[in-house]
Amino acid sequence: MIEAAINGARSKADNPHVPLSSAEMLASIAACVDAGASVIHVHAGQPVVGSSGHHDPAPYLALFAAARARHPGLALYPTLPGGGPGTTMAGRLAHVFALARAGLLSLVPIDPGTMNYGQVGPDGQAPVHDRVYQTSFEDVAWGFAACRQASLGCTLSLFEPGFARLMEAHRRAGTLPQPVLAKLEFSAGRRLFGLAPDATGVAAWLRLFDARRIPWMVTLRDGDVGRSLAGLAIRRGGHVRVGLEDHGGPGTPRNEDLVAHVARLAIRAGRRPAHPEELPELLAQAGAPDTDVRLPETP
Amino acid sequence: MIEAAINGARSKADNPHVPLSSAEMLASIAACVDAGASVIHVHAGQPVVGSSGHHDPAPYLALFAAARARHPGLALYPTLPGGGPGTTMAGRLAHVFALARAGLLSLVPIDPGTMNYGQVGPDGQAPVHDRVYQTSFEDVAWGFAACRQASLGCTLSLFEPGFARLMEAHRRAGTLPQPVLAKLEFSAGRRLFGLAPDATGVAAWLRLFDARRIPWMVTLRDGDVGRSLAGLAIRRGGHVRVGLEDHGGPGTPRNEDLVAHVARLAIRAGRRPAHPEELPELLAQAGAPDTDVRLPETP
Repeated sequence: MIEAAINGARSKADNPHVPLSSAEMLASIAACVDAGASVIHVHAGQPVVGSSGHHDPAPYLALFAAARARHPGLALYPTLPGGGPGTTMAGRLAHVFALARAGLLSLVPIDPGTMNYGQVGPDGQAPVHDRVYQTSFEDVAWGFAACRQASLGCTLSLFEPGFARLMEAHRRAGTLPQPVLAKLEFSAGRRLFGLAPDATGVAAWLRLFDARRIPWMVTLRDGDVGRSLAGLAIRRGGHVRVGLEDHGGPGTPRNEDLVAHVARLAIRAGRRPAHPEELPELLAQAGAPDTDVRLPETP
Repeated sequence: MIEAAINGARSKADNPHVPLSSAEMLASIAACVDAGASVIHVHAGQPVVGSSGHHDPAPYLALFAAARARHPGLALYPTLPGGGPGTTMAGRLAHVFALARAGLLSLVPIDPGTMNYGQVGPDGQAPVHDRVYQTSFEDVAWGFAACRQASLGCTLSLFEPGFARLMEAHRRAGTLPQPVLAKLEFSAGRRLFGLAPDATGVAAWLRLFDARRIPWMVTLRDGDVGRSLAGLAIRRGGHVRVGLEDHGGPGTPRNEDLVAHVARLAIRAGRRPAHPEELPELLAQAGAPDTDVRLPETP
């Protein structure tokens, strides 16, 4: 599986190819699918993940309907607005469930954990603000229960090991929605979360959950995933997310260039990019609780 | 260096040897020092880390004065009460700075990060409560600045990789107090934080900061560090924390039994436990900013 995160909080100043208008987003999605992407992550209307705890569903409904008309079965998902004081999961996920009710979504984005979120400044100083990216145990349990009730799968951004351990605990307890897709989040830049983006980091992630039952992909913020982690992930049976939301390499590539590069890596490694129609089957094999399997030494 | 965490939130029901009275704590500290410990972590008065954000300094002042009278130079440090809404670092560290003003403390405990804190229940279910263990970037910067101003060192509990990345960012920026001691926190039980307690987990931690400049130790909650991680840490140049606060092995050992076991491991590996008087020199070599050194691929 190749996921393309086509815009995120990027602007034309970062890269003139960042798709922002509906027409640009639709064209970018089509080009990414042609290049081998089967999952699309897009920010529509409000590109920046705000702390208001709520996103307008209207721009997403229009965009997702148009994209699905062109590519039936394509997995699309929106962003999850920030958590914390004054927000609720019902509010943060309102636009997501509106898309699901319209039949336009099958993966609900839930980031199952809490952390300080920030980066080293351009002056080299450590961050001093008090912004916390919060999704409590209770929030996660609420989100998972809502997904199970609506028979929706989840895509989970794992920023710290504790996020993966909670996912695995829910899987073992039988309370993880199905299907589920785990994103192992790496950063090659100044952001201060998570493991080093190398073979040791990938190996450490894979000690924390049962990778035979939960499909996983690598993402790399502020780096070039196609030139570093993608090969590692493909060799170990994982999947890859690319796209201008994350990209930090040189030049100003288009989303489809990044997808095409990973598709070539996969083929060279004896695998191939999944087609959107294959996704349900690919995801369905995974996520099931199985109490016979125990990872050594993890909770 | 061997650190002994002699009681924590444990009771006599967990192990009859948990020292709780002043006399018991003093006796346990003396026995641990005899067995090879040079750093003592103790909870006095309020054994449980509460969320009130404030601890009474009086029981600590009496205990630390008595322990220092017997073992001059011994490094002792108290607990850091929980953070979050309504708490401040000035309040959470008030008892710590009271000890420092009395000349009884040289390492300030700061846990440099935020996470959901909880564990899988006895019924195997994932936690559902909304308790967050919060020390924001701003809190950490405040604590580090207070330490630098008072010329005090720090001991840092690293529960998730982001905590280590923030420590390293402060080291590179020259804003980390000196000396500093990093505790790589592992769990062998049902707690849902951090890396797997194995060689991969240790290797992944050591990719996140410059271990030549920051001395580090392993801790293992709910497990037996002496029979698992201690050997690994000793071979890689690290230090070890043991004690009844963390211990989850079989039987009901005394603190000094756990210290003695690690001391034997160290000697067998060609190292030896540090004496309390050696600590200042051991710690002083480390923590310095050095912008010439760059770890590959980390921020």
